[in-house]
Amino acid sequence: MAESRREKVVLAYSGGLDTSCILVWLIEQGYDVIAVLVNVGQDENFDEARAKALKLGALKIVIPDARKEFVEGFIWPAVQANALYEDRYLLGTSLARPCIVSAMMKVVREEGAEYISHGATGKGNDQVRFELGAYAQQPHIKIISPWKMPEFYNRFKGRNDLFEFAKERGIPLPVTPKSPWSMDANLMHISYESGILEDPNTHAPADLYQMTSDPEKAPEKPCMLDIEFKGGMPVRVKNHNDGTEKTDALELFLYLNKIGGQHGVGRIDIVENRFIGMKSRGIYETPGGTILLTAHLDIEVFTMDRELRKIKRELDVKFGDQVYRGFWFSPECDFTRWCINRSQELVEGTVTVKLYKGSVNVVGRKSPLSLYSEELVSMNVQGDYDPVDANGFIRVNALRLREYQRLRKHKDGK
Amino acid sequence: MAESRREKVVLAYSGGLDTSCILVWLIEQGYDVIAVLVNVGQDENFDEARAKALKLGALKIVIPDARKEFVEGFIWPAVQANALYEDRYLLGTSLARPCIVSAMMKVVREEGAEYISHGATGKGNDQVRFELGAYAQQPHIKIISPWKMPEFYNRFKGRNDLFEFAKERGIPLPVTPKSPWSMDANLMHISYESGILEDPNTHAPADLYQMTSDPEKAPEKPCMLDIEFKGGMPVRVKNHNDGTEKTDALELFLYLNKIGGQHGVGRIDIVENRFIGMKSRGIYETPGGTILLTAHLDIEVFTMDRELRKIKRELDVKFGDQVYRGFWFSPECDFTRWCINRSQELVEGTVTVKLYKGSVNVVGRKSPLSLYSEELVSMNVQGDYDPVDANGFIRVNALRLREYQRLRKHKDGK
Amino acid sequence: MAESRREKVVLAYSGGLDTSCILVWLIEQGYDVIAVLVNVGQDENFDEARAKALKLGALKIVIPDARKEFVEGFIWPAVQANALYEDRYLLGTSLARPCIVSAMMKVVREEGAEYISHGATGKGNDQVRFELGAYAQQPHIKIISPWKMPEFYNRFKGRNDLFEFAKERGIPLPVTPKSPWSMDANLMHISYESGILEDPNTHAPADLYQMTSDPEKAPEKPCMLDIEFKGGMPVRVKNHNDGTEKTDALELFLYLNKIGGQHGVGRIDIVENRFIGMKSRGIYETPGGTILLTAHLDIEVFTMDRELRKIKRELDVKFGDQVYRGFWFSPECDFTRWCINRSQELVEGTVTVKLYKGSVNVVGRKSPLSLYSEELVSMNVQGDYDPVDANGFIRVNALRLREYQRLRKHKDGK
Amino acid sequence: MAESRREKVVLAYSGGLDTSCILVWLIEQGYDVIAVLVNVGQDENFDEARAKALKLGALKIVIPDARKEFVEGFIWPAVQANALYEDRYLLGTSLARPCIVSAMMKVVREEGAEYISHGATGKGNDQVRFELGAYAQQPHIKIISPWKMPEFYNRFKGRNDLFEFAKERGIPLPVTPKSPWSMDANLMHISYESGILEDPNTHAPADLYQMTSDPEKAPEKPCMLDIEFKGGMPVRVKNHNDGTEKTDALELFLYLNKIGGQHGVGRIDIVENRFIGMKSRGIYETPGGTILLTAHLDIEVFTMDRELRKIKRELDVKFGDQVYRGFWFSPECDFTRWCINRSQELVEGTVTVKLYKGSVNVVGRKSPLSLYSEELVSMNVQGDYDPVDANGFIRVNALRLREYQRLRKHKDGK
Repeated sequence: MAESRREKVVLAYSGGLDTSCILVWLIEQGYDVIAVLVNVGQDENFDEARAKALKLGALKIVIPDARKEFVEGFIWPAVQANALYEDRYLLGTSLARPCIVSAMMKVVREEGAEYISHGATGKGNDQVRFELGAYAQQPHIKIISPWKMPEFYNRFKGRNDLFEFAKERGIPLPVTPKSPWSMDANLMHISYESGILEDPNTHAPADLYQMTSDPEKAPEKPCMLDIEFKGGMPVRVKNHNDGTEKTDALELFLYLNKIGGQHGVGRIDIVENRFIGMKSRGIYETPGGTILLTAHLDIEVFTMDRELRKIKRELDVKFGDQVYRGFWFSPECDFTRWCINRSQELVEGTVTVKLYKGSVNVVGRKSPLSLYSEELVSMNVQGDYDPVDANGFIRVNALRLREYQRLRKHKDGK
Repeated sequence: MAESRREKVVLAYSGGLDTSCILVWLIEQGYDVIAVLVNVGQDENFDEARAKALKLGALKIVIPDARKEFVEGFIWPAVQANALYEDRYLLGTSLARPCIVSAMMKVVREEGAEYISHGATGKGNDQVRFELGAYAQQPHIKIISPWKMPEFYNRFKGRNDLFEFAKERGIPLPVTPKSPWSMDANLMHISYESGILEDPNTHAPADLYQMTSDPEKAPEKPCMLDIEFKGGMPVRVKNHNDGTEKTDALELFLYLNKIGGQHGVGRIDIVENRFIGMKSRGIYETPGGTILLTAHLDIEVFTMDRELRKIKRELDVKFGDQVYRGFWFSPECDFTRWCINRSQELVEGTVTVKLYKGSVNVVGRKSPLSLYSEELVSMNVQGDYDPVDANGFIRVNALRLREYQRLRKHKDGK
Repeated sequence: MAESRREKVVLAYSGGLDTSCILVWLIEQGYDVIAVLVNVGQDENFDEARAKALKLGALKIVIPDARKEFVEGFIWPAVQANALYEDRYLLGTSLARPCIVSAMMKVVREEGAEYISHGATGKGNDQVRFELGAYAQQPHIKIISPWKMPEFYNRFKGRNDLFEFAKERGIPLPVTPKSPWSMDANLMHISYESGILEDPNTHAPADLYQMTSDPEKAPEKPCMLDIEFKGGMPVRVKNHNDGTEKTDALELFLYLNKIGGQHGVGRIDIVENRFIGMKSRGIYETPGGTILLTAHLDIEVFTMDRELRKIKRELDVKFGDQVYRGFWFSPECDFTRWCINRSQELVEGTVTVKLYKGSVNVVGRKSPLSLYSEELVSMNVQGDYDPVDANGFIRVNALRLREYQRLRKHKDGK
Repeated sequence: MAESRREKVVLAYSGGLDTSCILVWLIEQGYDVIAVLVNVGQDENFDEARAKALKLGALKIVIPDARKEFVEGFIWPAVQANALYEDRYLLGTSLARPCIVSAMMKVVREEGAEYISHGATGKGNDQVRFELGAYAQQPHIKIISPWKMPEFYNRFKGRNDLFEFAKERGIPLPVTPKSPWSMDANLMHISYESGILEDPNTHAPADLYQMTSDPEKAPEKPCMLDIEFKGGMPVRVKNHNDGTEKTDALELFLYLNKIGGQHGVGRIDIVENRFIGMKSRGIYETPGGTILLTAHLDIEVFTMDRELRKIKRELDVKFGDQVYRGFWFSPECDFTRWCINRSQELVEGTVTVKLYKGSVNVVGRKSPLSLYSEELVSMNVQGDYDPVDANGFIRVNALRLREYQRLRKHKDGK
């Protein structure tokens, strides 16, 4: 009976120490907590996490498998967009957040919850991605963000305070010692930041990486892959070395992760500008994403008209920004995705890439639809092209430059 | 006496078969030819070339050493601009052309020549770069572009016709057999195209590359380099492995080429869109340029304000386009270079990169001027930042999204 | 019999002296000429033109009425795009050209013609618009552009030569004396250029304008119009003064021309940059287009999300450029139109404008779909908005600026 | 003695009811208040305001005359930028705010104050402009923004509460009845918003406007002005009608306001998107600014290279956004202004405009530096231009379009 008067919170639950403490803390604040642990491909023991949440007092735990949706609905659009933030970051976390939010908001609607809660900190991007995504889907949702609440963050000033609380409340402590950095994993990437990595000149320790081999220890023999695209999305991967083929979106992506990881592909160490205005240092490994970025960029330039692509590239940059900043669910990002998807209509063909000790390189490509014309470009065949035309082309392009030069001389002669 | 009535042509001379034939052909057309062979770092026997040109009847040959000017006046601005064409091509040839044109036009002025000539084909970009550059500097210059003149290209339809002509006129034939592709080299890169490479799915043969080792044969031991920037330009390179240091611009760049080349850095195989509208396939090796692009991008993001950099990045893209299309000498490119240079005022610091079997990766960076603040970003220190502020930040950013969602619901409910 | 061996040319025929001479000249060159006089709303006696063309020897004359297609297929997309070239020119001629080309190419296909011809000069934009449009639709079309053929332009060096030729060949001479400028008219606008207007400081004579009243002689009483939009296109105009209503696209546009013209709306005097690189001076009158630009811009800002509109505005600028330069039929313009049209989904509502002695001003607007919320914005009602949030919003936005200031002080203190 | 322990607040004081109440309220909260009333050309009795502030208990009142600085340091850069927000708003308030903030921060430094305060509301843009400007100049400044403090805004819920408080505290009440809207004035413009104007379909009442005549009542005789620019800034205005000339920046601008105002120039009624995400309706009158925008745009297109201007126009749009959003003092706006100013080097010449009953139209222009060439563009003179070149120009531009068409046919034929 009393229960029915408690308000419901849907908590983004990770199974780790922080969100376990938040779960208990929320209950202590008088809420009913429904934990949602969205499977976006992270390496997690979901059964254990389920048992733990319930043991800690969660009313319920929901563990939606969003992996297929993550690949098809979030990663594929990013592939079409050659999506990067600030020229380098492949947006692995940024893309997972709206996928997680969608799954959470589904639970919010099903359960009639009034609140959501999450464990993202007050200095990061993820708080923004969670909350903007939630507001965009449910304008009246209320958000409990403990790391932005003085009563919470003043109580839990460091890891020790959380340990203390966990011990008191019977929350299981992590068995493995905490790494001196934090990480976030999903099927697209693992990110590492903070702790010793906060000094941007500290080299990442060799044992940090979990998704990729050290290039120095990667196979001596390169791996050759054919990646086939249709509508700008990968539809088939074939390994030349052993003939493995994948066509299912999720399987294909996981396979690229595996093979890319073996060959040490996709590590980056960058400083980036967070939405809230700080610079932060992050280390990422994105094996499959890196291979697809390389291959898609190649097939796109190969098949797409130059001027169309110039417009599309500007949209790509905007898309990267929108996603990074947490605006996946926004009128501008909807629009950008539509337009980019439209541009991919004829992006079709197969790219051959070579993976070797940390690098991925294109070695050839073909397409049934390419605007590339061997006859036209050939040095030995004239094709449907009259070189004389180029004289006029250049002369007319020079007109403006020649006038400008005359003016400058006139001006400087003054 | 007769001579004085002959008009003077300044010919961009390479020492090779094509421009040797053009030299002779121009003389036969009644011109006095002044050959200009600009040293932009290509691997050439300049003495032999000099002797050959004079033997073939050139009135004079001028061999300016433009290497320092090429690095400081053309490559450094490209480094500041993170210059790429279509996201991948580092513009090695595109940057050399205006440097060559400048040296040629100096000779034009000194010699009072009325004409220039070059051996670029009618399907490529270089004809445009040569001719726009010339017109921009000397609006009334006249251009003899044999490969765009029917009387020339109908006479020399293939390599055999050139051989025939060379034999008849006593032009020395190349001793080494012609590769089944063409190449262009300068100290920034070597490009390979046409011939068997015209099929975009043909893999580049292993023996094609001349500037870089095969990554599979590169040293097993990575090389660590410190690259120091000031005003967005490299001012010092230091090799961790052996302590080598370079500070002179030309030496520094040549050293990066050497060390990058040893480690197989900077190969790409791409299809690109030529200015005249064709797609063409090119293979490039740009060892030093690739290292600098990687390092400069890193120090730039590290030190530059986020929003300033967003604007600057759009200028970078324009710069890449302008240079590729041959508009180095244009009001828009002058302006773009000024603006980009201005943006680099505080781009200062040192980036550590690791070269290994074809890849170059940043492993750390530091700067006396960075906007990066460890205290501010730290997870363990609050710094001058109140997490509560982020609530309002997100709420206000969400305002627009919430209104939009209400409208959509209203609309869909209709 | 002999005729069947003559090749067919489809000629863009205007009925005027130039294209009449070209018609006869083409016949003299051995072609069969099919004249096409596309009705895009110009003030022309089509029956006379028909008789004249046939009398001059045209095999046939086709006079398609493209007015409805011009309004719906070309002007409406321009309205959606708030289309301007260089911030001022409403593109009246630029939009008509692809409409005319489409009609011509239809005749080309029907008649199996191999050639098209037109009377546009070699210095202008229209030659480009005609020819690019034709090539884009029929890659192998051949084009006869007399004003770019030395055998033609050296023969007809001035108006007198045309008169001479016309007299000799029995081509009727214009009855009205030629104005000291040239003009081009369609239902969207009239343009005036060249002749005395080539001096950019010569004021346009009062008797030049044909579509609009002199604002000084326009009615003393303003006219109030309601313009209703759906999907970003006008669907209804209602005149407050007399209750007139128009809903048919062509009628609506013609009505706006009439009423705008009466009130002297839509005159501009500009210098613009032609595609070929020259600056030229043009005077335009675009009454209906000016009213729609004003009204559409207003309803768009009123109903469209801010950030979506920022992206859309960049596309608008590209669209204006594409159309001006003759690239209507191009992959990039197809894409741009598609995206812009997509952005207009919710652009719906009614704008009230006031026309008065040359100006058009918005005085009010309403929409069933606006994102405008009186409650939200009200100074007297808090609405769903907490002012405290703005503190955090500003503080977080300031973070970057404060860090920058600290750096500058540090730097300047050095 | 006691005084020395009170903390100092520098208050942006307007002399009106709101900031007078805030002044008193701040004193009641225990602060020493230094009122700053910056003269940016608003119509104010500064002596009365001084007396009033002191009478109310201000420690001091400072009334800097920032008019010249406002014109030269803020309006001129906006003229160079053809600055508009969302295509229509001339930024009159947005430009004044950073000018006011600068003057305030000077007082802050002189007085060693720790706080600033202002009367801007929590829903508007001005709060952002004040506060970002302050933080950018003094990273540790503290801000008291009463309308975002619950203890203030919950106490003063409407105008009546302010009246009540004023009466109790002896604050003089306004003698004139309050208009049913609010306004903000400076020498660039007056803005009107809120109150009855919150309904975006309510027409502005005729008696609202204070800076411009009703066009219907403006003089019957047009006014012709010559406006001369150097470096993109106005340096001379000459009235054709009566020979008046102005060359001093402030006088020139005030004169344009006067004469533009007489002719009813510069009224707009728009909906705009505030930085915080709301749409709001505003009515503005900007007579001098509108004349200068029209004239500068004309001289810029006349004198500037086309491609340079395309880049510059994108910077203009960014500038408008930066200024509107309160980022005048930011690395990106510094950069943008620097680049725009650089682009104006050759923007020099005289534009003749005609003012008539609400409109301003260019009728002619001349320049000692224009790229416009009458000879080149003339229809009757060939000039240094060969029409045959245009064939090649068009053919090469068509290459891409023809290839695309072939591909589409191939694709559709599948």
